[in-house]
Amino acid sequence: MSIVLSRDSRVRVMENTVTNAEKYFGQLCSLLAAYTRRTARLRDKADQLVKQLTDFANTENPELRATMRNFAEDLAKVQDYRHAEVERLETKVVSPLKLYGAHIKQTRAEIKKFKQVQKNEIKQLEKLEKLRQKSPLDRQMISQAETSVQRASADASRTTHQLEEVINTFQKQKLKDLQKIFSDFVTIEMVFHAKAVEVYSSAFQILESYDLERDLEDFRAKMHGVCGHYNARPLKDTMPSPAVSWALTGQSTQATIRSQRRDEEEDSTEHSAEEDPVQDLRGQGQAPQQ
Amino acid sequence: MSIVLSRDSRVRVMENTVTNAEKYFGQLCSLLAAYTRRTARLRDKADQLVKQLTDFANTENPELRATMRNFAEDLAKVQDYRHAEVERLETKVVSPLKLYGAHIKQTRAEIKKFKQVQKNEIKQLEKLEKLRQKSPLDRQMISQAETSVQRASADASRTTHQLEEVINTFQKQKLKDLQKIFSDFVTIEMVFHAKAVEVYSSAFQILESYDLERDLEDFRAKMHGVCGHYNARPLKDTMPSPAVSWALTGQSTQATIRSQRRDEEEDSTEHSAEEDPVQDLRGQGQAPQQ
Repeated sequence: MSIVLSRDSRVRVMENTVTNAEKYFGQLCSLLAAYTRRTARLRDKADQLVKQLTDFANTENPELRATMRNFAEDLAKVQDYRHAEVERLETKVVSPLKLYGAHIKQTRAEIKKFKQVQKNEIKQLEKLEKLRQKSPLDRQMISQAETSVQRASADASRTTHQLEEVINTFQKQKLKDLQKIFSDFVTIEMVFHAKAVEVYSSAFQILESYDLERDLEDFRAKMHGVCGHYNARPLKDTMPSPAVSWALTGQSTQATIRSQRRDEEEDSTEHSAEEDPVQDLRGQGQAPQQ
Repeated sequence: MSIVLSRDSRVRVMENTVTNAEKYFGQLCSLLAAYTRRTARLRDKADQLVKQLTDFANTENPELRATMRNFAEDLAKVQDYRHAEVERLETKVVSPLKLYGAHIKQTRAEIKKFKQVQKNEIKQLEKLEKLRQKSPLDRQMISQAETSVQRASADASRTTHQLEEVINTFQKQKLKDLQKIFSDFVTIEMVFHAKAVEVYSSAFQILESYDLERDLEDFRAKMHGVCGHYNARPLKDTMPSPAVSWALTGQSTQATIRSQRRDEEEDSTEHSAEEDPVQDLRGQGQAPQQ
């Protein structure tokens, strides 16, 4: 009977391995999917910020306009990298964890199969025990029952061995996959953060090189320009026509990584910028120079 | 009358400057506050992931347990940096933008004051025009009205000058603040991303150095240990008692940057780990070696 109990304990370890994997892989999958979704939402909010900064830039003087547009461009680049991060997390982290459901189901079926074989062994053992107590002298019946027990034990032993193989393979695959999935997670995050550092370094330079005094000069010229004092430096040099500036800084010429998602949003940006009343006002200020 | 019209246009430029600032600073403030909130939510989700990974680690064999705990530690560190990012964004980006509301209100009041002076000038001019049409020969009345117009014009001219000063200062401050706020935004983001790269590099090393074979050996030993085959390498070397391992890897000894927020969560992690049935099972497997 002790060998049956030890086999039972062994199977319990195996069952625990699978149950544990099911529980934690399920939870990790949900959490990592939620983490990915929240990253996507952060990207969406930053996309709105990019749009707003571009709108704002279009209402400002050339100096600040260029600075804000370039800064918005860089912020958009970071979101493109964040978008790539989201897609990679879905493909390389969330999806493989999702696949575990099926894998675990299959292993559970193997365990169930073994448990039936094990039940039979116990049944045969109990039958033999009863016989020994009720008819201890019926040698033939006892011998028959002993043969049945031996056969059932051999069955159980073989199946335990097979199950051990299955669980070993399962565990090995699990450990391999864990290492792979989390290494991928770390790599994806690392690449994103490294790219973000790179882009923000450029954005910092853009903001640092912003010439506030020149911008103020333009502002004063604009205030006075409206009432006929055109002694300020010509604005034309730094203020291309709206059509030209859109072509030059248009976000559609950006990295191929950029998705349809943002291009659609840009159309509306352009549209609203063209309708902006302040743009018209600036147009008035410029008119006398033409 | 043309000087009045030009003054009117000038004030319209000034008004537009303030209206524009009000509109865009308000929107940028909301968006940046939302961006900060979503960053905080991403931090919270990652905190849950850290907790789950620690729970999971506690149900695994020593090798994977150590790897997962160290990995969770690093993931927690990134969240600490993200938490610092959130707090800095609130202090250095969202708060200064919020303060603009009061600043703009004050400037609006200055404009309103001027407009009343301007209204008076127009009133006096209209009075003079009417007089000239109705009683073109009443020299005395016309002369009086002309004096009133001159006085009102002088008033308007002086106030316009004052207003220009106010708007100039407003614009200069606005441009300075914009540059400062977005430079701070970029710096905060840059610091966070750089720290994240650093920590994830270490996390990658942790996952790379994970010894899968050793872990599988332990797993096989555990399966056999339960049924009395104690020929595997002793587990004691790599499996300190729960109390010791908590002291060694306990997250409370971590960087000071870590806030109360996570420490509270850790208590529950510890608690659930102690109650885990798989921990008891492992205890059984170890017993014969003591």
